[in-house]
Amino acid sequence: MLKTLLMCLCVLLYSQHLLATDTLLVKKQAFEIAEFTTQNGKTISPVRVGWEAYGHLNADKSNAILITHFFSGTSHAAGKYQPSDPATGYWDAIIGPGKAIDTNKFYVISVDTLVNANVFDPNVITTGPATINPATGKPWGLTFPVVTIADFVEVQRHLLDSLGITQLHAVIGASMGSFQAIEWAVRYPERVKRLIPVIGTAYLDAWAAVRLERWAYPIKQDPAWRNGNYYDYGQPLHGLRTAVAYITQDALYPTAFNARFSEPADDVAPHQDILAPFSAWQELMAQAQTRAAVQDANHILYLIRASQLYRAGMGDNWQQALSQVKAKTLFLPATGDQLLLPTMSQRSAAVMPPPTVSYAEIPGDFGHLDGIVNISAVAEQIALFLN
Amino acid sequence: MLKTLLMCLCVLLYSQHLLATDTLLVKKQAFEIAEFTTQNGKTISPVRVGWEAYGHLNADKSNAILITHFFSGTSHAAGKYQPSDPATGYWDAIIGPGKAIDTNKFYVISVDTLVNANVFDPNVITTGPATINPATGKPWGLTFPVVTIADFVEVQRHLLDSLGITQLHAVIGASMGSFQAIEWAVRYPERVKRLIPVIGTAYLDAWAAVRLERWAYPIKQDPAWRNGNYYDYGQPLHGLRTAVAYITQDALYPTAFNARFSEPADDVAPHQDILAPFSAWQELMAQAQTRAAVQDANHILYLIRASQLYRAGMGDNWQQALSQVKAKTLFLPATGDQLLLPTMSQRSAAVMPPPTVSYAEIPGDFGHLDGIVNISAVAEQIALFLN
Repeated sequence: MLKTLLMCLCVLLYSQHLLATDTLLVKKQAFEIAEFTTQNGKTISPVRVGWEAYGHLNADKSNAILITHFFSGTSHAAGKYQPSDPATGYWDAIIGPGKAIDTNKFYVISVDTLVNANVFDPNVITTGPATINPATGKPWGLTFPVVTIADFVEVQRHLLDSLGITQLHAVIGASMGSFQAIEWAVRYPERVKRLIPVIGTAYLDAWAAVRLERWAYPIKQDPAWRNGNYYDYGQPLHGLRTAVAYITQDALYPTAFNARFSEPADDVAPHQDILAPFSAWQELMAQAQTRAAVQDANHILYLIRASQLYRAGMGDNWQQALSQVKAKTLFLPATGDQLLLPTMSQRSAAVMPPPTVSYAEIPGDFGHLDGIVNISAVAEQIALFLN
Repeated sequence: MLKTLLMCLCVLLYSQHLLATDTLLVKKQAFEIAEFTTQNGKTISPVRVGWEAYGHLNADKSNAILITHFFSGTSHAAGKYQPSDPATGYWDAIIGPGKAIDTNKFYVISVDTLVNANVFDPNVITTGPATINPATGKPWGLTFPVVTIADFVEVQRHLLDSLGITQLHAVIGASMGSFQAIEWAVRYPERVKRLIPVIGTAYLDAWAAVRLERWAYPIKQDPAWRNGNYYDYGQPLHGLRTAVAYITQDALYPTAFNARFSEPADDVAPHQDILAPFSAWQELMAQAQTRAAVQDANHILYLIRASQLYRAGMGDNWQQALSQVKAKTLFLPATGDQLLLPTMSQRSAAVMPPPTVSYAEIPGDFGHLDGIVNISAVAEQIALFLN
């Protein structure tokens, strides 16, 4: 009787909480693999990553949806850790009770990748160059093996296996998350029922690989980087900040960028002094510095490399690999994307069997970032596709 | 009689030469201004620039067309200096006898800008940080004043004044050349009859200014740059080459870029070694190194600054300045341009009186560079507009 009363009270409080904030409360959990072998044959002992989940796994464990995160992201896809958190997870607009990815129906799970950018965020758990290699008692640094999107997927598979989840109702990911989602459908065609690559592509071409290398350049040129061995001295903050600034700009269409940063015409000093910076540059760098505070420069280099190496199946014929996918697929590029162009989604979709694949574009002023901030524009398509 | 015979022979040889190679032969000339005052009130003594011309100036000097060059360009818009030259000027497809800009009708003239990138090209004459300041006997370095698009225009105006040319049938320029062309029409509305901004804009916004600053970054981060004082030590070649590589990529749409550089999937080393570069990166750098051989790092910084500062009229209201233009105007952006987006041409055109302004897009796979390599796609529109 008391137990029932308490349960009712809890449910009531929980519902009221939802009513009051419309926000899920979530908890970061840790998952460990004692010994993990990478795609290039190296060993990481142990791998430890964070994960979180929203909703409830049903009895036959058939209602799981995996959300794979983007380059600068974490597994915090929805909800808050504390009601006082200033922001929710990045796709809170579409993940939650009654939302497009309905947590009343689905068990939604997300995992921090290896070499996650935000390694110093207290809510992120990852393994990479900045974490301690127990064999030496020191940070891995550049002795950490090159890891790939396929490695990220294998870590997630280990976690799902440990939870007894053998079927995925869907895998959904934005940008670098789309690479992981596609790789899931390629490697495990029998396990993945539905696939949604958002602002995504099944291959990185020379143009994109070089664009990404330009993010790495400021880090590698910073003398404080010390060829990756900076852990005894402090981060190459100048290079890291610049890399984060470039990532920020490349993810934004000019309309959204110009709405946030000062017009060059308002600056007087740059007309007098060749070394005087524009306000827009300084503002961008200041914003990047704040974001870089929880990031690690080497982790950024490893994420760049994992992204550059991506093509479906990780072999020499991504088209052939992609044609093996059995999942029903919905490509959702952003119309104004100048980083992973809609043509990349189109080329990817073109090699999949037409009855399996559909395509819609996300409108907006943010370009690539519309895949995150404007995802509600395609909420209905996502809901329809999942049900 | 002998004189007439010689003249006929010359004309005959000239025509035959044209017939044989279909190529104009042109000659670089030098123009000097003893003392030039810049927009920001500094003095350059002397200014010396190169120029070349195609066709003949008519008796009332009313048939001149000024071609203003792009960032990495020179006044070599058409023809060859020697029949054995490996390439013609950059717009040879539209400038010449019987071509869209018909040198049988028009006197086409082009001028090397101040701080021209290719200062060490024997066919370029320019004044900038790498040239000798007679007052000190040493290169100007960063004591050279910040110069603007309006300064480029004023140098050209001095030259035209010296030739007695007070009317321009048209001013036509691509990219940074479009800034100069627009500035001509804004500053001298009575002198400019027609205006063609190709892959152009009447303003640089925060997004574009920051993109351009990213070209400057590798130069400024190169220790060999020595805050601009490298002339006793040799150029900051690593930074300069990287800047040129970035300019190359930003001017190319992915389709054309990928056709020229190796696919990342063909590289094995980057999957094993985090420091191993992709072939595409190395190829791009090698190509940039070749182009950088005649360029100066500080000149690139000054060209970046001149471009960043540009807005029509150089004041705080480019829209108002542009609305004063009297020239009949034809905007020709490139559909795939990701550097100066077609929307910039559209926004520029929108503030001009509708009967004056027209608009067409250049198709192609090259993006921004379509304004140079694919200009023949709009040759008919240009010819029609000029006649």
